[in-house]
Amino acid sequence: MTRRINVIGIGAGDPDYVTAQAVAALNDTQVFFAPDKGAAKDDLVALRREVCARFIREPGYRFVELPDPKRASDGDYTQAVADWHAARADQWAQAMLAELPDGGVGGFLAWGDPSLYDSTLRILDIVAQRIDLTYDVVPGITAIQALTARHRIPLNDIGEPVLITTGRRLREDGLAGASVVMLDGDCAFLGCAPSTHIWWGAYLGTPDELLVAGTVGDDGERIASIRAEARARHGWIMDTYLLRPA
Amino acid sequence: MTRRINVIGIGAGDPDYVTAQAVAALNDTQVFFAPDKGAAKDDLVALRREVCARFIREPGYRFVELPDPKRASDGDYTQAVADWHAARADQWAQAMLAELPDGGVGGFLAWGDPSLYDSTLRILDIVAQRIDLTYDVVPGITAIQALTARHRIPLNDIGEPVLITTGRRLREDGLAGASVVMLDGDCAFLGCAPSTHIWWGAYLGTPDELLVAGTVGDDGERIASIRAEARARHGWIMDTYLLRPA
Ligand SMILES: C[S@@+](CC[C@H](N)C(=O)[O-])C[C@H]1O[C@@H](n2cnc3c(N)ncnc32)[C@H](O)[C@@H]1O
Ligand SMILES: C[S@@+](CC[C@H](N)C(=O)[O-])C[C@H]1O[C@@H](n2cnc3c(N)ncnc32)[C@H](O)[C@@H]1O
Repeated sequence: MTRRINVIGIGAGDPDYVTAQAVAALNDTQVFFAPDKGAAKDDLVALRREVCARFIREPGYRFVELPDPKRASDGDYTQAVADWHAARADQWAQAMLAELPDGGVGGFLAWGDPSLYDSTLRILDIVAQRIDLTYDVVPGITAIQALTARHRIPLNDIGEPVLITTGRRLREDGLAGASVVMLDGDCAFLGCAPSTHIWWGAYLGTPDELLVAGTVGDDGERIASIRAEARARHGWIMDTYLLRPA
Repeated sequence: MTRRINVIGIGAGDPDYVTAQAVAALNDTQVFFAPDKGAAKDDLVALRREVCARFIREPGYRFVELPDPKRASDGDYTQAVADWHAARADQWAQAMLAELPDGGVGGFLAWGDPSLYDSTLRILDIVAQRIDLTYDVVPGITAIQALTARHRIPLNDIGEPVLITTGRRLREDGLAGASVVMLDGDCAFLGCAPSTHIWWGAYLGTPDELLVAGTVGDDGERIASIRAEARARHGWIMDTYLLRPA
């Protein structure tokens, strides 16, 4: 009997984003492994616990916290990420051997969807090369779906593509067409043409949700200051936006 | 009291993709408006009915079918789409006035997520200019999340963008980076370099699901023939794939 792991997308903010499939996987899991998530930690831990408390019928599960191994701060970025993944994989493999009985079922709760800007699957892939392990993936509502639903807008123009990208890449590559921007710590949209349409959302799906729609020229600075104020107040922020060139 | 409409993403294939928020919206809806969906009709109607039967607690709801107005087959494509949206909007407005009491709650079940290659929100936007109406959007699991979950793969390379596009646009624009391709009736991946990685999925999340992972050179023709055979057998197909240049 090999150990089995559920990688469970819990949606990006609202506990009501949890799917029936995720509920089944939550109830199938004995031990939840919880990698440390930095600044947003306390709020995200609370949300994770809320999801478990609400959707798990038998309270026989437990959490195992996995403190974040230090990431090398100098040197090559790609190498640093690879080293960090390897360190995580070691830590996870040990935790699974220690905490899961043979044939036991572990789980990871992934924010949003496990496949979108999330390293869980990459690390598990390494773990599975070291210990006997199988894993299943349960999809979740991403911040992109949360953004468009809350703004009540289509993601795509009819038959047109849309790029999913990051703040850093938007800054480097410029805006070539409709783009959803994630992982932007620094309002990269301010570098876009003033006529660019923007639909911005922070803390989507949560009681602290913020939404602004407009153009970069008319509303960009306002978004930047709302963002800075909210970030200072909460100690962290998660925001996402859709840009469409005029 | 204005009429209220729930646009409910039900996920792209598996009834277990339905979220707790969708379940609440399903139970909040009195009349489901069901636009006709062409070839896949019977199977998709069956899935829609299954979702309602399974998640709605009081059987007081009903379906109102909305037959597809003819789309002009010649002339300008953009104009034809605009005309077709206007015709749908007329039809929907009339159906809502006729079938929903003042203050009543209607609904549309959107396959996957309502914002992704779906015209429901665009048409409702026109309807809301004609009759007194508000609408809410409930996000759903898209075919993209279904594809990556079933292949158990990340969508993005670390920190890298990914394009969501269509078969037509892939053929016209070529492959510039990681891309998810939807709405491809004709295996546009066959035009990509043989070394291109492909993760292909059809009927994702359903009992008829098909998955192939490989490269365009090694596996492209095999995917094309599996696809043709499945399409002939079912009378329709829905497939999606992720491409990553070598
Ligand atoms: C590490 S990525 C994880 C994305 C996640 N896997 C998903 O499917 O949405 C974190 C980024 O997602 C976006 N994000 C996640 N949750 C969000 C929320 N509730 N509101 C706004 N943005 C969110 C932000 O851009 C944030 O920088
Ligand atoms: C009109 S679009 C609607 C997309 C939907 N709104 C979503 O969120 O996935 C239909 C396209 O979605 C993809 N698709 C939808 N469901 C699918 C499934 N179960 N398996 C594979 N592809 C699917 C196919 O590319 C299909 O051509």
